[in-house]
Amino acid sequence: MERITMAHGSGGRASHQLIHDLFYKYFQNDILSQGNDASVVPNIPGRLAVSTDSFVIHPIFFPGGDIGKLAVCGTVNDLAMSGARPLYITVAFIIEEGFLLKDLEKIVSSMSQTAKEAGVKIITGDTKVVESGSADHLYINTTGIGMIPEGLQIGGQYARPGDKVLISGTIGDHGTAIMAKRKGFEFSLDLVSDCGLLNGLIDQMLSIKATIKVLRDPTRGGLATTLNEIAIQSGVGILLEEGSVPIKQEVRSLGEILGLDPMYIANEGKVIVIVDAKDAEQVLKVMKRHPMGTEAAVVGTIMDAPKGQVYLKTEIGGTRILHMPVGELLPRIC
Amino acid sequence: MERITMAHGSGGRASHQLIHDLFYKYFQNDILSQGNDASVVPNIPGRLAVSTDSFVIHPIFFPGGDIGKLAVCGTVNDLAMSGARPLYITVAFIIEEGFLLKDLEKIVSSMSQTAKEAGVKIITGDTKVVESGSADHLYINTTGIGMIPEGLQIGGQYARPGDKVLISGTIGDHGTAIMAKRKGFEFSLDLVSDCGLLNGLIDQMLSIKATIKVLRDPTRGGLATTLNEIAIQSGVGILLEEGSVPIKQEVRSLGEILGLDPMYIANEGKVIVIVDAKDAEQVLKVMKRHPMGTEAAVVGTIMDAPKGQVYLKTEIGGTRILHMPVGELLPRIC
Repeated sequence: MERITMAHGSGGRASHQLIHDLFYKYFQNDILSQGNDASVVPNIPGRLAVSTDSFVIHPIFFPGGDIGKLAVCGTVNDLAMSGARPLYITVAFIIEEGFLLKDLEKIVSSMSQTAKEAGVKIITGDTKVVESGSADHLYINTTGIGMIPEGLQIGGQYARPGDKVLISGTIGDHGTAIMAKRKGFEFSLDLVSDCGLLNGLIDQMLSIKATIKVLRDPTRGGLATTLNEIAIQSGVGILLEEGSVPIKQEVRSLGEILGLDPMYIANEGKVIVIVDAKDAEQVLKVMKRHPMGTEAAVVGTIMDAPKGQVYLKTEIGGTRILHMPVGELLPRIC
Repeated sequence: MERITMAHGSGGRASHQLIHDLFYKYFQNDILSQGNDASVVPNIPGRLAVSTDSFVIHPIFFPGGDIGKLAVCGTVNDLAMSGARPLYITVAFIIEEGFLLKDLEKIVSSMSQTAKEAGVKIITGDTKVVESGSADHLYINTTGIGMIPEGLQIGGQYARPGDKVLISGTIGDHGTAIMAKRKGFEFSLDLVSDCGLLNGLIDQMLSIKATIKVLRDPTRGGLATTLNEIAIQSGVGILLEEGSVPIKQEVRSLGEILGLDPMYIANEGKVIVIVDAKDAEQVLKVMKRHPMGTEAAVVGTIMDAPKGQVYLKTEIGGTRILHMPVGELLPRIC
């Protein structure tokens, strides 16, 4: 069984072979094959969106995806959250010596397929190899560039009192699937990560000229943390209706067993949408028509006060603060 | 002594504190402070250069620099090698749990200073924390975006027979300084890494309208490996004059002790320049006037054959092939 050696990261013959036999084979495009220190891309008309993320998820293969698919989806989604059309991504691997080449090929193949689905080109990359024990299998950084259509103003600072809060589907699937895999609770075939591309859904939503103010994917820290961030950025309060938030039964049950609150569990294929109240129903309709939004729901309202805080109206009628979490939550979930 | 904990990578309160108290403090600029998933940058008129690199150097503090300075210089230099004016970089950290906060602050401060010198803005970032034993202190990815002036055509594929090969200064300084530090040979105060910014030097060279065909920084694998890459890309032979290549006496001596050939040792502040023969002396003059090029020299000539190979004319008058290296060379040198 062939394995990655330190020579694959040396810049010498083994590095070149890996680049040509594996990366060029799967990522093949006119820009990547330039083979220079920097890749040259044509002029992009308009403002650019730029996003970077390193992925250190454990385990690297999980129900519903792998670290490669996640690394492409994560950065494509972050670009889409600014309203941008994702165009290009860069890929940088840090690989532990001894890693199986066939596992690397699986991951690279998965990245290639996801990039094709997203309509983005992988335009340049880097490979470093570290000694056994200096990384956990492999880590991947992806950095993305997208083009923002003229006139769009989308960002966490634009929520205003009266606006409605929507979520594109069930929450907590990704984090719960990862924890279930780690703990060996793989009895439920239905529970898979929601790891997926959101740029198609967002394209649809932007095509209808509704007043969309905020798009944000609730990854690390989950829905509660991301809403807290938005409340702070916009200087508003947010009231979340517990009964409206879609949560799978498996996620609820496993959350109870593992002591995890789905509100704080990572998602990798969901988007929070904040829109002018008058457009909420229309946006919801468009979301429900897209495969990534079939279970979309209106889940909350932007309030004037208390500024910077998120309140949960519980199903039994009470109200409690959903705090920004303290402590470690779920490590290495992305 | 404060240390990085898993909570700093959780996306919760500790992550936010680290971002605000450390990264925003040192990297402060209008784009970074947007605080969204993707940063929005104004339109860039012209073609873009894009480059990505992860830095896993060991040790992270070394004579002449640290991993932070290296991570900024490395990506700025890669952009400059396409003739681009570097504009923006992204920064992503993978940090081992237990890493000292004061060491992180030193690195972040060094990145901030180097970015200022280079004239680039750090526009977005990411922080992941992995368990103790799942990384070696910290790894940094930087990805850069630059603008290529109209009309420039620079790349490893443009070398033609008759062209001259120049190098901006002494070779092997970086790799030798790192190896000396690792082996505890720190007796020589003069031997420091050449880790530095090349975009200022290249700006000067491009301002004189000489026919510059290739710019390439000989990092991993050193001068010999990089010339082999160019010979293959351009389909030419390269004849290198051993006696003309500037090498410090300490690098020669330590190379002999450690069994390392300076031709294959990494540089982090040197550039190979291939120019039309008629412009070689003029370009050399400009290089020597810049602080990063005082020891620049003409070191070789592009030949029609043998295609894809590099020949070394030795000081005693013989000729030998400088092969693309096989095996691991110096691991974790960048």
